Amino acid sequence: MEKIKPRTLSGFMELLPAEQQLFEQMIAVLKETYALYGFTPLDTPLIEASEILLAKGGGETEKQIYRFTKGDSDLALRFDLTVPLARYVAQHSGELVFPFRRFQIGKVYRGERAQRGRFREFYQADIDIIGDEKLDIMNEAEIPSIIYRVFTRLGLKRFRIRVNNRKVLNGFFAMLGLSDKAGDILRTVDKLDKIGKESVGAQLRELGISADDTDRILAFLSAEGGTDAILSSLAAYRGQNETFDRGADELATVIRYLGDFGVPAENFAVDLTIARGLDYYTGTVYETTLLDYPEIGSVCSGGRYDDLAGYYTDRKLPGVGISIGLTRLFFVLGDQGLLNPDCPSAPADVAVLPMTEDLSAAVSLATSLREAGLRTQLYAEKKKFKARIGYADKLGIPFVIFLGEDEIASGQAAVRNMATGEQISLPREEAAGYIRRQLSARPRGTVIVER
Amino acid sequence: MEKIKPRTLSGFMELLPAEQQLFEQMIAVLKETYALYGFTPLDTPLIEASEILLAKGGGETEKQIYRFTKGDSDLALRFDLTVPLARYVAQHSGELVFPFRRFQIGKVYRGERAQRGRFREFYQADIDIIGDEKLDIMNEAEIPSIIYRVFTRLGLKRFRIRVNNRKVLNGFFAMLGLSDKAGDILRTVDKLDKIGKESVGAQLRELGISADDTDRILAFLSAEGGTDAILSSLAAYRGQNETFDRGADELATVIRYLGDFGVPAENFAVDLTIARGLDYYTGTVYETTLLDYPEIGSVCSGGRYDDLAGYYTDRKLPGVGISIGLTRLFFVLGDQGLLNPDCPSAPADVAVLPMTEDLSAAVSLATSLREAGLRTQLYAEKKKFKARIGYADKLGIPFVIFLGEDEIASGQAAVRNMATGEQISLPREEAAGYIRRQLSARPRGTVIVER
Repeated sequence: MEKIKPRTLSGFMELLPAEQQLFEQMIAVLKETYALYGFTPLDTPLIEASEILLAKGGGETEKQIYRFTKGDSDLALRFDLTVPLARYVAQHSGELVFPFRRFQIGKVYRGERAQRGRFREFYQADIDIIGDEKLDIMNEAEIPSIIYRVFTRLGLKRFRIRVNNRKVLNGFFAMLGLSDKAGDILRTVDKLDKIGKESVGAQLRELGISADDTDRILAFLSAEGGTDAILSSLAAYRGQNETFDRGADELATVIRYLGDFGVPAENFAVDLTIARGLDYYTGTVYETTLLDYPEIGSVCSGGRYDDLAGYYTDRKLPGVGISIGLTRLFFVLGDQGLLNPDCPSAPADVAVLPMTEDLSAAVSLATSLREAGLRTQLYAEKKKFKARIGYADKLGIPFVIFLGEDEIASGQAAVRNMATGEQISLPREEAAGYIRRQLSARPRGTVIVER
Repeated sequence: MEKIKPRTLSGFMELLPAEQQLFEQMIAVLKETYALYGFTPLDTPLIEASEILLAKGGGETEKQIYRFTKGDSDLALRFDLTVPLARYVAQHSGELVFPFRRFQIGKVYRGERAQRGRFREFYQADIDIIGDEKLDIMNEAEIPSIIYRVFTRLGLKRFRIRVNNRKVLNGFFAMLGLSDKAGDILRTVDKLDKIGKESVGAQLRELGISADDTDRILAFLSAEGGTDAILSSLAAYRGQNETFDRGADELATVIRYLGDFGVPAENFAVDLTIARGLDYYTGTVYETTLLDYPEIGSVCSGGRYDDLAGYYTDRKLPGVGISIGLTRLFFVLGDQGLLNPDCPSAPADVAVLPMTEDLSAAVSLATSLREAGLRTQLYAEKKKFKARIGYADKLGIPFVIFLGEDEIASGQAAVRNMATGEQISLPREEAAGYIRRQLSARPRGTVIVER
């Protein structure tokens, strides 16, 4: 028979079993942490009506979306988790309790040009808190504190959550009478990290901004000297614009609560240059960078918005949320050698290797090990001794138990520690306890290790 | 602004938060149990090249598949998890260790005619063990023992895993010289439960089978009297056909090991009428029925196959696997009132309700509760007391902590048990321990309760 070459599509990540175990551990850390902060899991369809997903429309989204017809339905695959959240909250608002705190970890689809480290199918991990009409500023501090906890639990240390407030930026531009150019200015300023002050200045001038205003913009945005100094620098601009003053207050409050939430000073910073491209954000905005890998850009971004679901409902639903691009993060971490090679990725704690034709005793032993909570494989293939040991070794299974005629007759089990080669003979009912003690003595590493 | 009506597509399940919590618990039980049996998680793309997914082609699959083009690629959404597994194993066979034990829980897509209880997007939960050239018969007993464990842990009691062996059936038909009609006969016999012996007999006659052979077929398949009696009834047919004899041996071995795996006799049965539609199966086959809801049909089916990936590789990869249609099972359980209303579905264990303008003390308390492992929400909205309590009540959060000026000054916390209304004042650092003790004293119910 003619064979079809087995392959995946370009831009679609697929992991081998040991890598997948690490990825699953990463997701488990996210889920546990989000649950600890009282977020409830959601799961929405991957396919929605195109009309729903493209309500906002325009731009890259429309070009990249996977859209198709089935029967006479115009369908599309979701390209983020925010639009489905907006649709969900609008649709079920009568049945939800607000503030509504949900997390969702799921795949999204964008038909981007395929290139290394860019994916067409990728996981996003989103948390959002949605208010009914209002939402307290505290939530804008809680969101980055959760990200701090997630990254710390994953094993990351050298990262910084950079915080700004859109009202501060918008208010500042209003003071200069440049509100109508705020969008263009913010998009230009967003490039400060990449192209530098001088080029940004030149581009601002090209927008028709006077030399004076360009200097003012750059002076304002270049405030330096740490969180307290930057917050203090805002005082000089107070009293001229209400939006600015509110933004400065919000920023100070968020920074203060971040400390109360237990986020150490080295893991956050005020950065007045952060704007986030989307017009959508109206208050606090976040970006998160790995200090040793600035070239990667932000690995976790989000912010406060005032109108989540205006395309679907008249109800005013403000919120705050943040998103991690998990697939890309995992790829980058692997690429930089930051995934922990000692993190357990074996599919089992112990493999039972029967040495007899009849497997009844081996089946019973495997059953009792599982009842004791040990992840157990029963290897029943009729292979040479070396092949059997090789099986457990290749998978990194830390313990094997041999069960031959002698052991069965004497009620014993021969337990081998695969790392040390040490082998001991035990009464069979003691094997589970012995292995559990040995396993719990091992340090359980985090998914990520920084060098 | 004109609003777009928020809606999901027909045939796409979407759950409210409390239901979603139950669904997540169901998936957690599956994952834990599969891991306990040494299965490793896999995750394959939802989109594959149509050529890959339709390698087998034909029939309902081709009609129901979601297929579309993007650029010049002919793409499709997976309609099951077996074809992607075959592709994965063929593609990565050099990097995998055999027998390869994997589980996958993921969504699949079939554009079926929409009707109540039928879904176009639904979760399948699959386990498979894939051998390299050979695979020991033990694995054919282990697979249903895992299903027994999964269902029991979910809280199901009245279910039965029905087991048969395709070699027994094929061998029997060969004895009658009806091998070429085996497919048609098996498809007809598959309806025995639905349309009864007489109608099946008539349909067999229509296939051109003699009255004598029809009687023989029906007599063979109607063997009754429990597992031992049915196995004994096979003895009378031995010695005439090698395939039959091998099948009878395999069936006896599987039944014996099922007992060793700890599956109680009432939870399995030999049922010679089970054939499974697919040509694909070559040995043991399974179906699982809920005894009180036979009309639902099989909720978990699978079997042994000899050639997993023949469309993609020359390598011979036999295996055994089973699949649960999770979305449908969840729907049916809900429909029958079998989902446990007392199963905890709250998004948090405790809600902190601050009674002061400044939230620093509340933020610190919430942080310490989370560090103690309690799922904690901090409710910061400026609402009336009744609305705040109502919030926790509607979500079913079992404990709330009030934090006012008095408590802050005295270092106390006022903890209310929402179920009993009992409220006590405690030193703040003792609140977490108190709530943990109360929570752990509660019985943790299973997801499913049978009445």
